[in-house]
Amino acid sequence: MFTPATDKKIALFLADGCEEIEALTVADLAYRAGIPCTKVSITDSTTVVSSHDVTIVADTVIGALPFDEYDMLVLPGGMPGTTNLGACAKLKEEVLRHAAQGKPVAAICAAPSVLASLGLLRGVRAACNPSVEELVIAGGAELVREPAVRDGRIITSRGMGTAIPFGLAVVEYYLGRETARKLGENILYGAGS
Amino acid sequence: MFTPATDKKIALFLADGCEEIEALTVADLAYRAGIPCTKVSITDSTTVVSSHDVTIVADTVIGALPFDEYDMLVLPGGMPGTTNLGACAKLKEEVLRHAAQGKPVAAICAAPSVLASLGLLRGVRAACNPSVEELVIAGGAELVREPAVRDGRIITSRGMGTAIPFGLAVVEYYLGRETARKLGENILYGAGS
Repeated sequence: MFTPATDKKIALFLADGCEEIEALTVADLAYRAGIPCTKVSITDSTTVVSSHDVTIVADTVIGALPFDEYDMLVLPGGMPGTTNLGACAKLKEEVLRHAAQGKPVAAICAAPSVLASLGLLRGVRAACNPSVEELVIAGGAELVREPAVRDGRIITSRGMGTAIPFGLAVVEYYLGRETARKLGENILYGAGS
Repeated sequence: MFTPATDKKIALFLADGCEEIEALTVADLAYRAGIPCTKVSITDSTTVVSSHDVTIVADTVIGALPFDEYDMLVLPGGMPGTTNLGACAKLKEEVLRHAAQGKPVAAICAAPSVLASLGLLRGVRAACNPSVEELVIAGGAELVREPAVRDGRIITSRGMGTAIPFGLAVVEYYLGRETARKLGENILYGAGS
């Protein structure tokens, strides 16, 4: 059962060819932490097929999203998911408008390259997948090869294997370090005995 | 694109209330590694709703699955997903028949308790979620608090935060330690710089 811990809402954008674990790990950890998270298809169909052929039904479509009600916009990676995100004019326009309002944006894997192409990573410490490091550096970012990095209003991460640190960084953004640390412990992340 | 590396097939069972990350991390890593993995709903509908309210469309339903074509059966955890798995007579019957044929079975989080209830963990080194340790011990297992454990034909793991080690143990089972290690590296699991 979902128990809200904040009234700030996250919009998570699902493109065909997205990495389902990068996307859904954020949805999962936000749910556990009590952060409302809406899964938004960037086409006019709620059905999305991931890069590993998993069919997911989104909560809504981008054309129907009341963007002003949302605080954080989250872009998962994957190919061709990232290419599809970068080709979505509505998404890019809203990400720019959103960032201009001083609201947070998060991206993982190849998706930080979309933020870079919009000029949002200039002078920002950012992580990304090795496959897009040149694009992210060309966009003026200070590349950091850490599992997840927050610099001001921008959270970035490296790939499927760093999806949990990325999701925990999103949780920490709203609910603080101790809550994120406890959540990591509860899901047995990195837990041996 | 999926490139097969083995002709052994995995069946991954999805119940309403399953943990979507535990389930789909296996599907993701199997896909990357080239191990055919079929997502099987345990009801008569291909649509499954996870414990964190994610709607996933399975490839097929349990009543239509040609079990004899499959090598490994995989049970993700979550609540009430695990209860639903344990209440599915067809699944339990097939898991028992499958194990009696000397074929592999894998379970994560609360789902090892289903294997324990079937008597499949007697004398087996097994990991599970802290919430079901007593059930697993009562089933005769030797409890091991490691992220993922293989003992013969049984692979078990602890929870959402250990889904990647679990998936990599499945990959290692078919394709060997070096392939699993490289895959972990490729997805940047545990990768700092």
